[in-house]
Amino acid sequence: MAIGYHLTNQTPGVTDMDDLNKLSAFDAVNGIRKKRFTSQQLMADCITRIEKREPSVRAWAHFDPEHAMAEAKKADKKQDNGERLGPLHGIPVGIKDVIDAKGMPGEHGSPIFANRVPEKDSEAVIQLKKAGAIIMGKTVTTEMANLTPSKTRNPNDLKRSPGGSSSGSAASVADFHVPLALGTQTGGSIIRPASFNGVHGLKPTVGQISRNGMLLQSHTLDTIGVYARNLVDLAIINNCLIDQTTDAMSEEILEEGSKVFKNWAKTAETPKFAFLETPAWPEADIGAKNAIETAITSLSSACQRERLPDPFSKIIDYHAAVFAAENSHYYGPFLDNHSELLSEKLRDRLIVSKTTLASEYIAAQNARDKIYHLLEALLDDYDAVLCLAATGAAPIGFETTGSAIFNGLWTYLGVPCLSLPLLTTEKMPLGLQLVGKRGDERKLFETANWIENHLKAS
Amino acid sequence: MAIGYHLTNQTPGVTDMDDLNKLSAFDAVNGIRKKRFTSQQLMADCITRIEKREPSVRAWAHFDPEHAMAEAKKADKKQDNGERLGPLHGIPVGIKDVIDAKGMPGEHGSPIFANRVPEKDSEAVIQLKKAGAIIMGKTVTTEMANLTPSKTRNPNDLKRSPGGSSSGSAASVADFHVPLALGTQTGGSIIRPASFNGVHGLKPTVGQISRNGMLLQSHTLDTIGVYARNLVDLAIINNCLIDQTTDAMSEEILEEGSKVFKNWAKTAETPKFAFLETPAWPEADIGAKNAIETAITSLSSACQRERLPDPFSKIIDYHAAVFAAENSHYYGPFLDNHSELLSEKLRDRLIVSKTTLASEYIAAQNARDKIYHLLEALLDDYDAVLCLAATGAAPIGFETTGSAIFNGLWTYLGVPCLSLPLLTTEKMPLGLQLVGKRGDERKLFETANWIENHLKAS
Repeated sequence: MAIGYHLTNQTPGVTDMDDLNKLSAFDAVNGIRKKRFTSQQLMADCITRIEKREPSVRAWAHFDPEHAMAEAKKADKKQDNGERLGPLHGIPVGIKDVIDAKGMPGEHGSPIFANRVPEKDSEAVIQLKKAGAIIMGKTVTTEMANLTPSKTRNPNDLKRSPGGSSSGSAASVADFHVPLALGTQTGGSIIRPASFNGVHGLKPTVGQISRNGMLLQSHTLDTIGVYARNLVDLAIINNCLIDQTTDAMSEEILEEGSKVFKNWAKTAETPKFAFLETPAWPEADIGAKNAIETAITSLSSACQRERLPDPFSKIIDYHAAVFAAENSHYYGPFLDNHSELLSEKLRDRLIVSKTTLASEYIAAQNARDKIYHLLEALLDDYDAVLCLAATGAAPIGFETTGSAIFNGLWTYLGVPCLSLPLLTTEKMPLGLQLVGKRGDERKLFETANWIENHLKAS
Repeated sequence: MAIGYHLTNQTPGVTDMDDLNKLSAFDAVNGIRKKRFTSQQLMADCITRIEKREPSVRAWAHFDPEHAMAEAKKADKKQDNGERLGPLHGIPVGIKDVIDAKGMPGEHGSPIFANRVPEKDSEAVIQLKKAGAIIMGKTVTTEMANLTPSKTRNPNDLKRSPGGSSSGSAASVADFHVPLALGTQTGGSIIRPASFNGVHGLKPTVGQISRNGMLLQSHTLDTIGVYARNLVDLAIINNCLIDQTTDAMSEEILEEGSKVFKNWAKTAETPKFAFLETPAWPEADIGAKNAIETAITSLSSACQRERLPDPFSKIIDYHAAVFAAENSHYYGPFLDNHSELLSEKLRDRLIVSKTTLASEYIAAQNARDKIYHLLEALLDDYDAVLCLAATGAAPIGFETTGSAIFNGLWTYLGVPCLSLPLLTTEKMPLGLQLVGKRGDERKLFETANWIENHLKAS
């Protein structure tokens, strides 16, 4: 069975029903709505894929195929009954295991939470369910979304790390288990795995997606975000997660398909990009530097090299101070009461974090808006900042989830970031990161769309 | 020359021109506008009073009678020219020496700032000048609005402390140097001196009066407030300091005089007061406790004893943690660079403050709104909270400015507080403190007006 028009040209190999798991969410939901296939058929292909790949990739902390199939059956019945269908009707979504889904284990990657099953959905899951999505299961997180690596492997190269902390979410989307997944970022936990696994990742503006029902480790940094295999899918799910009344884009996309996509292209015909090395640049490896330099060359006059004045140079330290201070507040009780259940890495880190002085924290907090205003002024002249998403390819081995040094600075500023799988190094994916003004995700998507078209064509 | 109608009956002895300094701001501005006397005549009486009393009271850090008189002359000329007159036209106001006034020394009570003369007015001073007020000079503050006592004496008993840190502002108003003065509160620096000196003091909702051009020691606590010798004056100056476009009360008062006053009485005919001992109660002396118990008895069914549940019991510690943390951020550089110019008391305090952990600070910050919501719920049932303004009368001697334990808790919550000079102990004034919801100063004034009438009559 032919699937018909593919908006994003991401799934050229899909020619029969065995590959429905490779469809984008957009193509899948339209296929279901137009009755080319059912949610149960889509679900069956996703389950088959997971069962085949999970022994190697280990992306799932909780996965119950019977439950998932029962939900798909309900979705199909809803359609048969002629009920109104949401923009993610019948689409399976992976949920990082620090975000609660009612009735599914929520162990946060830590024995401290063994056998914990939340009785309520998180706000993000409530929104997804409203949009018609099916909660596929809980994806593997590093220990409490912190640094200690998880069991997950990089599907592009099983000898490599998937990155963290949203390890299972990025890997499951990259490996075609599900078209969409939720992640969270406090340092680099969405963008870095997106870069390492070669998927699209969005860390939205802080505060846009409700954190109710999520394990908090830092109230000024923690941000829920999303993974997909193309920009349109990313925009759809992000839209479903934020206040749906303020923006009709998701419905629009479903009703008018490629029109919105064309609008993106139209409204961002000649964007201007500011390339920032950022203070993280010295940590990037030569392959990563070469990869982004090639992209910059290809962008030609659309991209200018820029610098931000001080205090931008201190931004990495400020992020670290805020992370340590707030993490110590939220995880301090675990150190005090469950020290023996923490990994050595997290225990040692929390012992150090506990010594963060209030004056260091306040200095870092007070600098935040000053630095943001420097960035904002730059973005008055440019459509987006362009920089590396990671220091290099996913690390070989599983001692570390890789450096988040290209991510924490943006998380600290609360700005939206996209990782686009447009670069390669060591024959592995590497993300090109775009950064925008707080709250202006739409412009970020438009410029991202332009740059994807441009770099793929060149 | 008879002064005519006295709104507040605070100045019964004023029967000739020698006592214009004893007038309320309201009576004085109306006297000037109705040409019963000039701003220069008012100023002359204030200057005479200051020159007579300043050697004993020591309320002024900077006072230049010639400059003040020249400003009064300008005010009179403005009136002669038929220009529009502000609600504080020709009225002298004292400015605490941590708030900048252009061209006047701004030494913050510390040799670190010796010979500092700011080139710009603070926002508060700009507002006062717009309202027509004359900046009389800079009133004495404790060392950088912290704990180390100043040279100021309590005009009610020169052997006693005026309290701190707004020592000179409260003393100068109490001693009829000026009808109005600005203070600041981070712990108890407005309400405590109001209580000790027997004047009216308002610490408004945090953030209502701009702090631009003020020495910051704690960005979540520092609040500019006002002193006067009656409620109407307090309301007028507070109104001039906040955004004047949002509330026409000050103009209203000037045009319609007692009508507004009567409105207060009308709209708060039978207010309900919740008496809270607060966690500070064990620190109050027996005289203070007896004084407020007598007031409660007199209020009869208008006042109920109430308690707030936890975490209210921790509120004093939370205030201390926030104060220490933020003070260490703002004053840390003084400790690092000018240690020898700090008093031993402040130096020792800053050394301890520097050790405040970020996690303690964050815990205190995060508890703030939770506790406020408990208070807010109580204030859904009552018009105001009533409690002591201080632990007792002004201390004898000058080792300390007295305890601020009845004040820091409300400063922490950011709520408006009034100290009314309605109680006495040890033949000294003692404030009755009223506390309201954030932003609802008007209701606080109304209920304060009712309680003053009630307790004076009883």
